[in-house]
Amino acid sequence: MLSDIEIAQKAKAKPIGEIASKLGIPTSAIEPYGHYKAKIGLDYVNSLKSKPDGKLILVTAISPTPAGEGKTTTTVGLGDALNHIGKKAIVCLREPSLGPVFGMKGGAAGGGYAQVIPMEDINLHFTGDFGAIQLANNLLSAMIDNHIHHGNELGFDIRRIAWKRVLDMNDRALRDIVVSLGGPGNGYPREDGFDIVVASEVMAIFCLSTSIKDLKERLGKIVCGYTKDQKPILASDLKTHGAMAALLKDALAPNLVQTLEHSPAFIHGGPFANIAHGCNSVLATQTALKLGDYVVTEAGFGADLGAEKFIDIKCRKAGLKPAAVVLVATIRALKFHGGIEVKDLKGENLDALSKGITNIERHVNNIRNNYGLPCVVAINHRTEDTDAEVKLLQDKMAHHGAKVILARHWAEGGKGATELAKEVVRLCEEPTDFKFVYEESLPLWDKMKAIATKIYGAADITADSKVRGQIKKLQENYGHYPVCVAKTQYSFSTDPQLRGAPSGHVVNIREVRLAAGAEFVVMVCGDIMTMPGLPKVPSAVSIDITDEGKITGLF
Amino acid sequence: MLSDIEIAQKAKAKPIGEIASKLGIPTSAIEPYGHYKAKIGLDYVNSLKSKPDGKLILVTAISPTPAGEGKTTTTVGLGDALNHIGKKAIVCLREPSLGPVFGMKGGAAGGGYAQVIPMEDINLHFTGDFGAIQLANNLLSAMIDNHIHHGNELGFDIRRIAWKRVLDMNDRALRDIVVSLGGPGNGYPREDGFDIVVASEVMAIFCLSTSIKDLKERLGKIVCGYTKDQKPILASDLKTHGAMAALLKDALAPNLVQTLEHSPAFIHGGPFANIAHGCNSVLATQTALKLGDYVVTEAGFGADLGAEKFIDIKCRKAGLKPAAVVLVATIRALKFHGGIEVKDLKGENLDALSKGITNIERHVNNIRNNYGLPCVVAINHRTEDTDAEVKLLQDKMAHHGAKVILARHWAEGGKGATELAKEVVRLCEEPTDFKFVYEESLPLWDKMKAIATKIYGAADITADSKVRGQIKKLQENYGHYPVCVAKTQYSFSTDPQLRGAPSGHVVNIREVRLAAGAEFVVMVCGDIMTMPGLPKVPSAVSIDITDEGKITGLF
Repeated sequence: MLSDIEIAQKAKAKPIGEIASKLGIPTSAIEPYGHYKAKIGLDYVNSLKSKPDGKLILVTAISPTPAGEGKTTTTVGLGDALNHIGKKAIVCLREPSLGPVFGMKGGAAGGGYAQVIPMEDINLHFTGDFGAIQLANNLLSAMIDNHIHHGNELGFDIRRIAWKRVLDMNDRALRDIVVSLGGPGNGYPREDGFDIVVASEVMAIFCLSTSIKDLKERLGKIVCGYTKDQKPILASDLKTHGAMAALLKDALAPNLVQTLEHSPAFIHGGPFANIAHGCNSVLATQTALKLGDYVVTEAGFGADLGAEKFIDIKCRKAGLKPAAVVLVATIRALKFHGGIEVKDLKGENLDALSKGITNIERHVNNIRNNYGLPCVVAINHRTEDTDAEVKLLQDKMAHHGAKVILARHWAEGGKGATELAKEVVRLCEEPTDFKFVYEESLPLWDKMKAIATKIYGAADITADSKVRGQIKKLQENYGHYPVCVAKTQYSFSTDPQLRGAPSGHVVNIREVRLAAGAEFVVMVCGDIMTMPGLPKVPSAVSIDITDEGKITGLF
Repeated sequence: MLSDIEIAQKAKAKPIGEIASKLGIPTSAIEPYGHYKAKIGLDYVNSLKSKPDGKLILVTAISPTPAGEGKTTTTVGLGDALNHIGKKAIVCLREPSLGPVFGMKGGAAGGGYAQVIPMEDINLHFTGDFGAIQLANNLLSAMIDNHIHHGNELGFDIRRIAWKRVLDMNDRALRDIVVSLGGPGNGYPREDGFDIVVASEVMAIFCLSTSIKDLKERLGKIVCGYTKDQKPILASDLKTHGAMAALLKDALAPNLVQTLEHSPAFIHGGPFANIAHGCNSVLATQTALKLGDYVVTEAGFGADLGAEKFIDIKCRKAGLKPAAVVLVATIRALKFHGGIEVKDLKGENLDALSKGITNIERHVNNIRNNYGLPCVVAINHRTEDTDAEVKLLQDKMAHHGAKVILARHWAEGGKGATELAKEVVRLCEEPTDFKFVYEESLPLWDKMKAIATKIYGAADITADSKVRGQIKKLQENYGHYPVCVAKTQYSFSTDPQLRGAPSGHVVNIREVRLAAGAEFVVMVCGDIMTMPGLPKVPSAVSIDITDEGKITGLF
């Protein structure tokens, strides 16, 4: 059995110009990055505006488990399958962060025979977008501390700096630090910390911007910190948003690559799915919709978190209307939701599966009833799945209005997912009753309550008086913003240990954060980690390169 | 009068494939980065080994002054001039750091009509090399703290970590920090700090490596820190050098761009000229020598620092033999060396010039006698230079064996420097008596003394007993390494205020640092700054981008 990187390295990629020209993109509109990656020029992207949109298909998943579901793999496999049955389909994915690549998870370019290539490039630096985002973020940090050092005319309260530095690295040592030690030449000591780059508000802004003008305006609105009387100080007050936008100029153009089967794939941007909205860039999705008849994209985490944000933040802001949803699950992961630990997942277990199906039922019902979208369940097939298990799942789901289809793209590529592709095509012709979970006009508190009660199955939401006060204050100027919930992805509740479909719980809002440039209000429910750490044996120790320049150990 | 960026943006660049094919590089060997930048594949670079080398011309300068000399501009102008008179010339430069771009200095892609393009790309991200170097550096940092957090099997003494994090940003707040605060989940608190990326040992290693194999071996030799009984712990002990090399794989291939006049230019790597050796990559220089008849390159700072390291570190290690040296000066800068402050530099001042000429005399004598290389002085012409000033300089220099030639490439491009080009061609035919300042077999202490007495005009060197002890200890295992002096670039002495040609001073070694992967021993003489700060009004506030994506305010 070949590893992912071995499969990817055996693939014979087509020159990227060929992939582009199949989409009708002229050579003059592409900026090649090597022979197999390209950026699509923003002038060309703009020129597509009057063309009609293709069908947008969202791939989401059950609540994630350590057993793995394969959302990216299914997104790629479905794209290939749609092309396999003669449709013109494009895949839209997020760019992987180096944190997980060097940490635990490995790469994020699909797996098996459903991958995007060149997988080493995509997983390592790709076209430098994350580097540009990191620099733009950290330029603002340097400008803040520099401004304070040189007299602090704008009157920053150094206890109330609201902007952290970022790196694309899992580095727990940088979570909580003290900067500007060492004497007067180094500025005023204060508490600070680094987040991982995907948690930067610049990343969220980048992914929601529709033009350079929009990008620059949003960057200018970033709140860097507050004065002693708690007035916000913006990036535009520091005159830094222009230079930040200049740093992001090249990055903003969407990246085009291909799948193992030469389906076109846009991979662009990758905000965290907890404190940000967790979807690839609006520009990539919009461009793909102009160029393809079917656009298959994914959102972060499960259908309660990623899909909700995809709909309530990305679709709302960018005017997108999904046509159908694919909900990915594995039998293995459902058994985990049924209460079985990872080490005990081997072998048929109908009882555990039966219990775990509550998780998928809740998600399917949410998609159909709360998002108003047609849905199909894709079982990312594993060889150990038994017929009895598959049948049980199909029977249990029969009355929920979503077919359950076994998809074998991991082992077989696109042709292994043709049944799934055909069902998706059929769903795209169905009428939708697409709706947001809440209206923009609803107060922030009620928006959060709508998400919690409708999507999470919660009884209510709470917050202590300090947080209630902050929400009330944000309501004055930012009440029309969507809410971006940061909570554990592992459960419908805020307790990661509660698997399946807990209900009647109370969601406590621990903290609120304003993302004024991204134009949403983050409600933090439970502990969230914006700078991960490395495990005891990080995958970095297995990653290597031969004398001939071949990368090994990426999976 | 047009600004640098206006001149650069008006230029009509040729497709990079055309520039490459003029050099005989096949299309299959180039990895395009957009239409005007490319990397040259390492397989192709290797295939050139048996070809004869062209002539290597080093451009260096008098001791730098705030008045400006124009070393990069002259390197570019000379390259264009050599092509203008019918020679096949290639320029080799360092990649600019974003620190100065956003700080005080602005861009570093030449100036006026002697620039490399696309200047915005070169000054902002270029092909992502610095991002890759930063990531490789910071992966090692994360692995060190992670190792300690998970049990510290290798026995790091957290008071003796020898590896700092880096960013490509001028950010004084990060010079002295405390990391791993916030409780047991975040590791063991310790003092730390960030350097700017050009100060990373990874940058020095990158620029001295001749292959991926060599790169990986050098990365493995990096000393991350010491145990309590002061045994070094290496990057290879942490098994991180493979992943670091994998991150640097694409970056290691040299970058090809063009000048305004379409001369080919390799711009690759950019180590600091104080704690590192300050030259572009060995791979770029070696590749250029195989492809061009004349290769014009620059070294950091003045001829006492940058040129000495170019010769004693880069040329020695890479087996390069320069054919001639161009020493760049401006009349203005020489008057500054004569004791005049920048604000008083306007107007003819023969007295100050006469005094300042001592600086250029010392450099010319060093180049001719201590490096054994033929030399020409290039006066980077400014319109306010008077005939009497030029004549005085020429007269004074007449008996030093180096012609003084006015070069007008800034205003006129290559044709403004044809006289300089012709003299360089003539010098390249002269026999050289090329020599190092010291032999490899000399003890470290004596190497430092040779540099100080022969090149700086010092009477002696000193160090306190602690530093002497460290040097003695390093002598045991690393005595054969070259010395890399970190001292002020503004003076032959260690006092930046001592202009002209001070002599008889004593150079105190304040600190020594081992760069085991770069294979040199840094001797720190005086205060050196490895993380610069931003000025009160950073150039970042002027950098902007139009709605159409045109960058403005870079100079």
